[in-house]
Amino acid sequence: MSDKKPKKTQKLRARLPRGLEDRGPAAIDATRQMVEKIRAVYERYGFEPVETPAMEYTDALGKFLPDQDRPNEGVFSFQDDDEQWISLRYDLTAPLARYVAENFQNLALPYRSYRAGYVFRNEKPGPGRFRQFMQFDADTVGSASPAADAEMCMMAADTMEALGIPRGQYVVKVNSRKILDGVMDAAEVPLFKRIETLRCLDKFDKFGVEGVRLLLTTGRKDESGDFTKGVGLNEQQADTLLSVFAPTNAYRVNYKKNDGTIGYLEGSPDKIISNWDEVLNAHNEIGLAKFFGPPSVNPSLLALLNANVAIKAAPIGMEGIGELLLILKLIQEAGYSDDRIRIDPSVVRGLEYYTGPVYEVELLLETKDEKGRPVRFGSVGGGGRYDGLVSRFRGEPVPATGFSIGVSRLQAALTMLGKLDTRPQPGPVVVTVFGGDIAGYQKMVAELRNSPADPSRPDGPRIRAELYLGNPKHSLGQQMKYADKRHSPCAIIQGSDEKANGKVQIKDLIAGAGLTSIEDRTEYLKKQAEAQIEVGESDLVAEVQKLLARHGVSWN
Amino acid sequence: MSDKKPKKTQKLRARLPRGLEDRGPAAIDATRQMVEKIRAVYERYGFEPVETPAMEYTDALGKFLPDQDRPNEGVFSFQDDDEQWISLRYDLTAPLARYVAENFQNLALPYRSYRAGYVFRNEKPGPGRFRQFMQFDADTVGSASPAADAEMCMMAADTMEALGIPRGQYVVKVNSRKILDGVMDAAEVPLFKRIETLRCLDKFDKFGVEGVRLLLTTGRKDESGDFTKGVGLNEQQADTLLSVFAPTNAYRVNYKKNDGTIGYLEGSPDKIISNWDEVLNAHNEIGLAKFFGPPSVNPSLLALLNANVAIKAAPIGMEGIGELLLILKLIQEAGYSDDRIRIDPSVVRGLEYYTGPVYEVELLLETKDEKGRPVRFGSVGGGGRYDGLVSRFRGEPVPATGFSIGVSRLQAALTMLGKLDTRPQPGPVVVTVFGGDIAGYQKMVAELRNSPADPSRPDGPRIRAELYLGNPKHSLGQQMKYADKRHSPCAIIQGSDEKANGKVQIKDLIAGAGLTSIEDRTEYLKKQAEAQIEVGESDLVAEVQKLLARHGVSWN
Repeated sequence: MSDKKPKKTQKLRARLPRGLEDRGPAAIDATRQMVEKIRAVYERYGFEPVETPAMEYTDALGKFLPDQDRPNEGVFSFQDDDEQWISLRYDLTAPLARYVAENFQNLALPYRSYRAGYVFRNEKPGPGRFRQFMQFDADTVGSASPAADAEMCMMAADTMEALGIPRGQYVVKVNSRKILDGVMDAAEVPLFKRIETLRCLDKFDKFGVEGVRLLLTTGRKDESGDFTKGVGLNEQQADTLLSVFAPTNAYRVNYKKNDGTIGYLEGSPDKIISNWDEVLNAHNEIGLAKFFGPPSVNPSLLALLNANVAIKAAPIGMEGIGELLLILKLIQEAGYSDDRIRIDPSVVRGLEYYTGPVYEVELLLETKDEKGRPVRFGSVGGGGRYDGLVSRFRGEPVPATGFSIGVSRLQAALTMLGKLDTRPQPGPVVVTVFGGDIAGYQKMVAELRNSPADPSRPDGPRIRAELYLGNPKHSLGQQMKYADKRHSPCAIIQGSDEKANGKVQIKDLIAGAGLTSIEDRTEYLKKQAEAQIEVGESDLVAEVQKLLARHGVSWN
Repeated sequence: MSDKKPKKTQKLRARLPRGLEDRGPAAIDATRQMVEKIRAVYERYGFEPVETPAMEYTDALGKFLPDQDRPNEGVFSFQDDDEQWISLRYDLTAPLARYVAENFQNLALPYRSYRAGYVFRNEKPGPGRFRQFMQFDADTVGSASPAADAEMCMMAADTMEALGIPRGQYVVKVNSRKILDGVMDAAEVPLFKRIETLRCLDKFDKFGVEGVRLLLTTGRKDESGDFTKGVGLNEQQADTLLSVFAPTNAYRVNYKKNDGTIGYLEGSPDKIISNWDEVLNAHNEIGLAKFFGPPSVNPSLLALLNANVAIKAAPIGMEGIGELLLILKLIQEAGYSDDRIRIDPSVVRGLEYYTGPVYEVELLLETKDEKGRPVRFGSVGGGGRYDGLVSRFRGEPVPATGFSIGVSRLQAALTMLGKLDTRPQPGPVVVTVFGGDIAGYQKMVAELRNSPADPSRPDGPRIRAELYLGNPKHSLGQQMKYADKRHSPCAIIQGSDEKANGKVQIKDLIAGAGLTSIEDRTEYLKKQAEAQIEVGESDLVAEVQKLLARHGVSWN
């Protein structure tokens, strides 16, 4: 074998698989800033960190059906040497459920925890859609109380503000899967049509209210003439659904008229309040309109009133209303008004494992779509109650609720808002080299690195410095080009003459860059002279410190 | 399909695949502390962060042989939908090489960068050996200068000290693959026996000098009588190899006698210095002993002298000596003496892709092996020059050198040294609940969370607080048990009487825990009374702040 001619190695192509990205200094730094701010809020709420590995048994992720011999698509999977399937996690919730089930006896319940980490989706990538991205989750396991859900919503709102998103530019929307179920019960939507119905109700953005009505009933023809089959509900069923779920720009409240049909008030809060008696009288069934004392018209309350009418006392729906009312009371008592957290029945959100309240954080700032039209930035996180996930392992009910932030998506939004410091950090001081003996230059670098950037803070950050490590035969011009590319505040130069005299030149690259804007010749020459000074070797550190102070350069 | 009876779901077992671990608050916090300290050093050296995703094309990792249709073992791999193989990265070096090759035109060369991240090994796990673990790497690409390697070694030493490891408890050992090759050239070890020879030279720890000599020559019988075949070198070849690579407890220097045979001086530095003329006279070939001026006996210089004798001017070996001499000069000039960085030819280190200087960080503190015998903690990181990795993609030579810290392993060492703060953070203030209406308790929690822990630092960390979210019917005792388990500094209690009077109780759990040690009854009752105080609702925050200050509780 050993005398076999080695195969000629082909040159490899350096490339990443689709849907994966490398991240440079600005993105990494921005993520770190975000993660630290989010972490501070979560810890203030008493959540403690826990991390699970990137991979789990496929069945623990709920992605393995017993009658299939291959895991579902959507996850990256491989077989272990004992033939068991392992997958990369596709979210942080399923692994947490496994962790809690495994350590149930040792955890202080209710167990509040948080974690940031990469998740992996084996899906078709697209613009802004990656196959590896970061999530930052918080979960409370072991509490069935809607207070746990209310806490998640308040924490989400606090997190947005901690990240610098001004009040009014975000909203946390709350709904309950039970409201959705209750309205569908009341509208007598057959069980086998419900998934389809929910999918339609998630499409107001795309098709508008009338488009969704067509999809719910007889079907819809699009501009190109293509026909989408309808769900086949009748008009009355569609009415009931739309009365709750259709988004509206006006304040609106439905009420049951004396003849049993549904009416509504729509318009300004003033107009609605002036007609409030009408609503009050119509809502005597559970006294919902009286719940908050004197009539205060806010979207959350109106949304609940609307749902209450449509639900027609279907038990699951009434349960949902009760939970949302409690959440509303808790958040308003704690000082979170409708401009921060609001009940919104249009929130459908993932169909898989949610069992109660669901919530979504939406950014209201506008961006442009691919055609240049303004669109809202939209959802940057969300979650809900998932009472079934842990009990898969435990065989007993274990209530849980959780919240997940899409870090990468939120980072894009914060960058757009200018809330992240994405300026490149100043580069290091570059010590240039001449001739073969570089030990003296290395010594200067070591001295700089061992000195504080700010002499009044001896324990603060030290000076960032480096030796020019390119070809030592490179000209001073080539070495300066490198220092410019590195955003260095200054370069250190010592030729043989200076060396003999124990001197060193400090070239101020920040002042030097400003020279081009000076039009007066005398001024130019003066500034140019100032931008390069000669100092004694022993003054090098002090002079560099002065230069850093002059330009306000500091490294964090 | 829809009327098919659903299969009865079996209870899943909650467990992780072998070789993977969950990480709790103490471990996560320790890693964060470490990563921040390492990062500060790397940035001071002018390195900038860059991150690559967890997966790469298998061939880019160098793990795919063109004549195999399955990737090598050792990596976790799967096929993409276009049939190309993708693997989880098994180190951070191969992905960096891909990144640099892909972005070559846009990088300021030499390119210094760093990154921390998880790597994955599809190997048999064992105690302390995981299939997912964290590395923290730094690399300089585009510099062929040994100064780049010297910088890595100095940075490694600085990193150990930044992490709190005292000087003398760690050492950075430097060698060169070229020394190994040169000595084997000089000893005329045939090419096909070299891998085997290097494997033997890596086993002094296990078998001692005489054991290795047997392995290199005729073979070795172990205690059980099992025979291991030798490499088949002759005694003279073994002598040459052992003269350089055998570890010795004494200072020792080989020299060539006038009759051409090899002699050595061994003993204390004083003894060697008193006989220095003998060495000087023998080393006139390249004047190595004169290199550092007046004779200073240090292990690095002696190791080079030894290697110089054994190498017998074999070109590759002389190149290695020249590089190591330059490294030694640079580090000593910069103030790093032998107690921090030292030349040590016994460093063999990974055989795969290193092409020049190799280095290893060893912790000298002792731990116990499984039989309770003291052993050195050993290697926590290392690296070397890998001039071939980037050029696989570029088709032109691209010199590079890099250093990798095994974060998990180093974390174990630092924990043992007591250099990591692994005390649990104080838990949150727990607000207990009574009766159905919890909105008032929620309000207290929100007030606490919105207040600084230390009133003199209004922008500092705020009070960590939480509402008791367990079953609201739980007794006060059960709620207190929870607060204890959470390490809460205090619990807030408000029964219906207090509520009616606008009062609230603060129970000091830290003072309370100290009560058991008080023997005097009067003192006990006094302290017990002090440990629970009643205050007005509006004084709650201020009183909690006082309590936190009293016990020195702060959250970071």
